[in-house]
Amino acid sequence: MTKLPLLLFVISSIAIQAQTTQDQQGIKEIFNEALSHGKSYEMLSDLCLKIGPRLSGSPGAAAAVEWCRHLMETYDFDSVWLQPVMVPHWVRGQQEITRIINSKKMGTINLSVCALGNSVGTGPSGIGASVIEVKSFDELKQLNPKSVQNKIVFFNRPMDPTQIQTFAAYGGAVDQRGSGASEAAKLGAVAVIVRSMGINQEDYPHTGALRYAPDVPKIPAVAVSTKHAELLSRLIKEEKELQVYIETHCEMLDDAPSFNVIGQITGTEYKDEIIDIGGHLDSWDLAQGAHDDGAGCVQSIEVLRLFKELGIKPKRTIRAVMFMNEENGLRGGAKYAEVAKMKNENHIAAIESDEGGFTPRGFTMTASDAVKNKIKSWKPMLEPYGLTDFDHPGGGADIGPLAPLGTAMIGYLPDSQRYFDYHHTPVDTIDKVSKRELEMGAAAMTALVFLIDRYGLK
Amino acid sequence: MTKLPLLLFVISSIAIQAQTTQDQQGIKEIFNEALSHGKSYEMLSDLCLKIGPRLSGSPGAAAAVEWCRHLMETYDFDSVWLQPVMVPHWVRGQQEITRIINSKKMGTINLSVCALGNSVGTGPSGIGASVIEVKSFDELKQLNPKSVQNKIVFFNRPMDPTQIQTFAAYGGAVDQRGSGASEAAKLGAVAVIVRSMGINQEDYPHTGALRYAPDVPKIPAVAVSTKHAELLSRLIKEEKELQVYIETHCEMLDDAPSFNVIGQITGTEYKDEIIDIGGHLDSWDLAQGAHDDGAGCVQSIEVLRLFKELGIKPKRTIRAVMFMNEENGLRGGAKYAEVAKMKNENHIAAIESDEGGFTPRGFTMTASDAVKNKIKSWKPMLEPYGLTDFDHPGGGADIGPLAPLGTAMIGYLPDSQRYFDYHHTPVDTIDKVSKRELEMGAAAMTALVFLIDRYGLK
Repeated sequence: MTKLPLLLFVISSIAIQAQTTQDQQGIKEIFNEALSHGKSYEMLSDLCLKIGPRLSGSPGAAAAVEWCRHLMETYDFDSVWLQPVMVPHWVRGQQEITRIINSKKMGTINLSVCALGNSVGTGPSGIGASVIEVKSFDELKQLNPKSVQNKIVFFNRPMDPTQIQTFAAYGGAVDQRGSGASEAAKLGAVAVIVRSMGINQEDYPHTGALRYAPDVPKIPAVAVSTKHAELLSRLIKEEKELQVYIETHCEMLDDAPSFNVIGQITGTEYKDEIIDIGGHLDSWDLAQGAHDDGAGCVQSIEVLRLFKELGIKPKRTIRAVMFMNEENGLRGGAKYAEVAKMKNENHIAAIESDEGGFTPRGFTMTASDAVKNKIKSWKPMLEPYGLTDFDHPGGGADIGPLAPLGTAMIGYLPDSQRYFDYHHTPVDTIDKVSKRELEMGAAAMTALVFLIDRYGLK
Repeated sequence: MTKLPLLLFVISSIAIQAQTTQDQQGIKEIFNEALSHGKSYEMLSDLCLKIGPRLSGSPGAAAAVEWCRHLMETYDFDSVWLQPVMVPHWVRGQQEITRIINSKKMGTINLSVCALGNSVGTGPSGIGASVIEVKSFDELKQLNPKSVQNKIVFFNRPMDPTQIQTFAAYGGAVDQRGSGASEAAKLGAVAVIVRSMGINQEDYPHTGALRYAPDVPKIPAVAVSTKHAELLSRLIKEEKELQVYIETHCEMLDDAPSFNVIGQITGTEYKDEIIDIGGHLDSWDLAQGAHDDGAGCVQSIEVLRLFKELGIKPKRTIRAVMFMNEENGLRGGAKYAEVAKMKNENHIAAIESDEGGFTPRGFTMTASDAVKNKIKSWKPMLEPYGLTDFDHPGGGADIGPLAPLGTAMIGYLPDSQRYFDYHHTPVDTIDKVSKRELEMGAAAMTALVFLIDRYGLK
């Protein structure tokens, strides 16, 4: 009688060991295929070089939707469809001008700038004013409002280079870009110049979205390159009468029709349990959006392609979702969750890749402890592939609206050191992407989906 | 009486905790300084753009020696000196030609090649012959020797893309480059073409050293780009009579005088315990040698600079060693160990950085279990900086000759995914180096030296 439990224990241990070996083998096959015959880099080259910039509402975005739909149909996924969504339609118009017009030392100096996304334009007559520099909203609020009136406010707090995770440095600086215009407008400023969200000394500006607060005048906003932020700061200190002229031609048009693009492999056993894997298809208008977020899109498609290529028939339903409008509205993410809720769908996990196509470090997670512990129990199988970091909360902007449905939020976590060299700039191009790093990311995401599919998250 | 041991335990626990906090603080300051005001990228830009290629024996190598000495003197290290060493002096000469001369389908095709380092040249009359392809020495040895006689042997085994650590893939293929010429010559071949040591499909060849076996005729050897390796392989299969013409002008001249360049901060307490940190100053003649190994050199100098800048006075002696001639002879490494032995110096640890200036992953170690365990006990303090991998044996080529002296061999282990895109090619240039990744590596190396200095390795 006493021996039976022991026997059961032994049998069960052997079974678990066999399962683990099988899982390890499956993961190895996924990486082998992705690294030997992967298609993610080829897809990304096409997206970057044949489509290029694809800001919401633009012809490029429409082309990207069609490209993506066609691509997934070519791979013969079980279903491929477009999910309609109305998106903001902001256009940059003619190229921006921002120049120092009266430096005693240097005369007229053209600054390297670009309008911030969603900004109103100055129109052709431009805005000329003197400039007041601040490092934070606190500093702004402590100023005598009169000293801000009719001025251009220059937000010049750098990203903190000592943050090891560069997204933390971004988080510590991006309020200036997002809310600086409205904060300055409350005090009567006429425009803002924001230091670009880049860590290095660079010659090019970083664009990105601003949000106007309600009931505050909308004033124009530009980002200036980090190098020219330093120059401007120095000159303001040296020459009290310094005047800057800003001319931008951007405007917000009527909302435009667009789509999330979705591909699916339907589960064989629990088809109502959906695992989402996605990135955003829109990019800024200035660049190819290679890392942000072409990478996440092609990696997500590659997950489904690898399942098919390796003949893995998932028990659960796996969806690759290419969200529209992450950059300046998040309408695609909101629509996707809205439809999911309406249809009462069960999205057990959503995995987002929107931190670039860099070498794997791990996954971020926001979920119940039980779910997190289950995923962490797979860590020994993922560590050999460089996936060691499972300890940070996370997910992603596009999948965020699914959280209230109880979906486990998971973010693919690549190495972050290079991301903000390229983010929202003209140099976010395909040549900045390492084929192997991109493939490693796609394989890492596939491996996680493979395990979630096998074991569920309960 | 019974309470005393407990009290001692508590006091000792508090002391250890305080020490750990102090160490963590020290490491944080090192990273802060390296990431905020680091000089490694500026140094590397100078080395790449002002000096450029610096193969042993070349004017570039002599310039690099002077540059490096001057730089360390500027930083005011306690001692800076040159250690004389005679080095091989191989020159490429006029640019190589390798062409398919009689393809029925494609006529004459110029292949993208470069002579392998240390190779003899064909001279101006060149060598024309038909080509026999093999994937391994075993395959070569199984051939009828007559079928190899007077042929060009084409070694075409690719690096294995499924190896997660790309150095493992390199290790699995590089015998073709190192020994292929002599193995083929034993069977009467007249020249060899070796597939480049690159994983991707590329347009450019990778050079690198070969070693001729004694008592075997020296035959010319070139590396061909991976793309043209594929082309050549296909055409050989399709056209049996295919002839290739090789013309190279390289030659080995007499040994030339050169130097290891050494900088030192002398220890305050145990100055006879030496901690070496180094990279190699020579590069191939085709490129700037940014990752290989300008990165390791400037990181090593940065270690000493950070100690000085932060006012950390090491108890032990810390030496930055810029070895000469790693690429085609290893004479610098051998000389350094020879002098160390002659002087009966106590080198407790040698740390080499020669795997590129990429984001940190950990350190490799070949040492006693006690030493390895001591270093691993510091892992919790290093993990927040991405240093998680301490489990692989290692060290480096240049420090290898110190091993018989009982020195702990340690290698800086960066992420390896991009290394073989650049290794030994014209595209190993400064623009392929991320400033932050380089700085993170320098800080990681400094942190380890900081801990070894504090606690020794006994």
